[in-house]
Amino acid sequence: MHLEPVRDLPEIRNGDDLADLIADRATLESADVLTVASTIVSKAEGRTADLDDYPESGRARELADRIEAITGEEKDPRFAQAVLEESTELLIDAPFLLTETRFGHICVNAGIDRSNVPDHDLLLLPKRPTHSAERIRNGLTERGIDDVAVIVTDTCGRPFRHGQRGVALGWAGMPASRDWRGERDRDGRELGVTVQSVVDELSAAANLVAGEGAGGTPAVVVRDWEFGDLEGSDELFRSVDDDLVRQALRRWEWRGDE
Amino acid sequence: MHLEPVRDLPEIRNGDDLADLIADRATLESADVLTVASTIVSKAEGRTADLDDYPESGRARELADRIEAITGEEKDPRFAQAVLEESTELLIDAPFLLTETRFGHICVNAGIDRSNVPDHDLLLLPKRPTHSAERIRNGLTERGIDDVAVIVTDTCGRPFRHGQRGVALGWAGMPASRDWRGERDRDGRELGVTVQSVVDELSAAANLVAGEGAGGTPAVVVRDWEFGDLEGSDELFRSVDDDLVRQALRRWEWRGDE
Repeated sequence: MHLEPVRDLPEIRNGDDLADLIADRATLESADVLTVASTIVSKAEGRTADLDDYPESGRARELADRIEAITGEEKDPRFAQAVLEESTELLIDAPFLLTETRFGHICVNAGIDRSNVPDHDLLLLPKRPTHSAERIRNGLTERGIDDVAVIVTDTCGRPFRHGQRGVALGWAGMPASRDWRGERDRDGRELGVTVQSVVDELSAAANLVAGEGAGGTPAVVVRDWEFGDLEGSDELFRSVDDDLVRQALRRWEWRGDE
Repeated sequence: MHLEPVRDLPEIRNGDDLADLIADRATLESADVLTVASTIVSKAEGRTADLDDYPESGRARELADRIEAITGEEKDPRFAQAVLEESTELLIDAPFLLTETRFGHICVNAGIDRSNVPDHDLLLLPKRPTHSAERIRNGLTERGIDDVAVIVTDTCGRPFRHGQRGVALGWAGMPASRDWRGERDRDGRELGVTVQSVVDELSAAANLVAGEGAGGTPAVVVRDWEFGDLEGSDELFRSVDDDLVRQALRRWEWRGDE
């Protein structure tokens, strides 16, 4: 498996054609996987916003005030309002906001970025990252580049372990995971491991070569990797029913005494 | 970045020298990262066990009975006893066991494997995976192969997202994460992203080429990847104090009505 960053992408603006810009800078081949950071997908899709677009509700002010009181850091209630509007459920409301976005991904502040946009206050996540991935894939096909899988990526933290990792938000041209159920080990015993989240692993791998900041490259080509002939699944985001941690968080409230 | 599986490793037995076996089958170079699946590390370290080694305590019988009643699947109380003995804290006690292992990793059943050992009932995780990684790294150095970082890997699930991903259990020759704090984006603004868990991302990447089962390759060489000159940290496992999810789980109990 080989990973190569796509170099020299320009600053992306609303309306830019990412398939075009990437195809001009990378030699993509059939069966490659292309990862694209959600930041540039959002910029191309005009998912920028300003704090003034989000007049605060009473609930947003309440959340912001409480977090400010706990952390001592100023929290703009309009930002809390933006997070609420991008989310379907608030999983943690203090000392930070952990929410489920409208497309099912769980992350801090609904993934809204305050550091990455030159002319606006906020960069929202793509509205439907899987649709974004499909559009890029179709754009490549229109340019005669067939059969490239596309993953829209982000980085986020996770319970139990420090640090951020590359994760997939949307994907096209491949399933999200592959299913080893029924496969056997060397001694013929059925495997304990079942479903492997390959889109997350590909996003993590890509994040190792993408880097961050001024020298970062938001698109990466993965070559010589095969999904293989295993069954695939597109279920990536857990629902409350099959996520004990979500159930536990529903009953929990931050007290600050722990 | 390039990843290559180490092919044709034999079935690993207690006392085997993994550095030797791997060096014979891979051309390792300075600055490579070598990932080694915990299964073969455990086998080489004799971390096999049998159910009879774990006479059940009352607590283990209680746990096993409850899980059996909930799931309808037979649960050996000696297995629950083994999980308890490998763990320092039980985070979830039903409908499955999620624990913190003695070296700080949180996973189901303390990572004990029932499918991977030919002559025993159980394969435990390595006792101190970071020590295991150091031993392999030193073994390579003794063979004249300097400056190879080693990561002992496993796969595990995670809250909020389906499927398993490669994760790091122990590492040597590199920090666990790199710290982008203070780095700036193209517009000179400080980055939102801070600490990147590179050992987890390398483990996820390796898991893409390692595969599972009879055709699986438990060791992978990562080449042409650089940590860079960022600050590093070896904190990977969160403590209760900085993990709201762990705090939430402490107050939670499975009721089955959700």
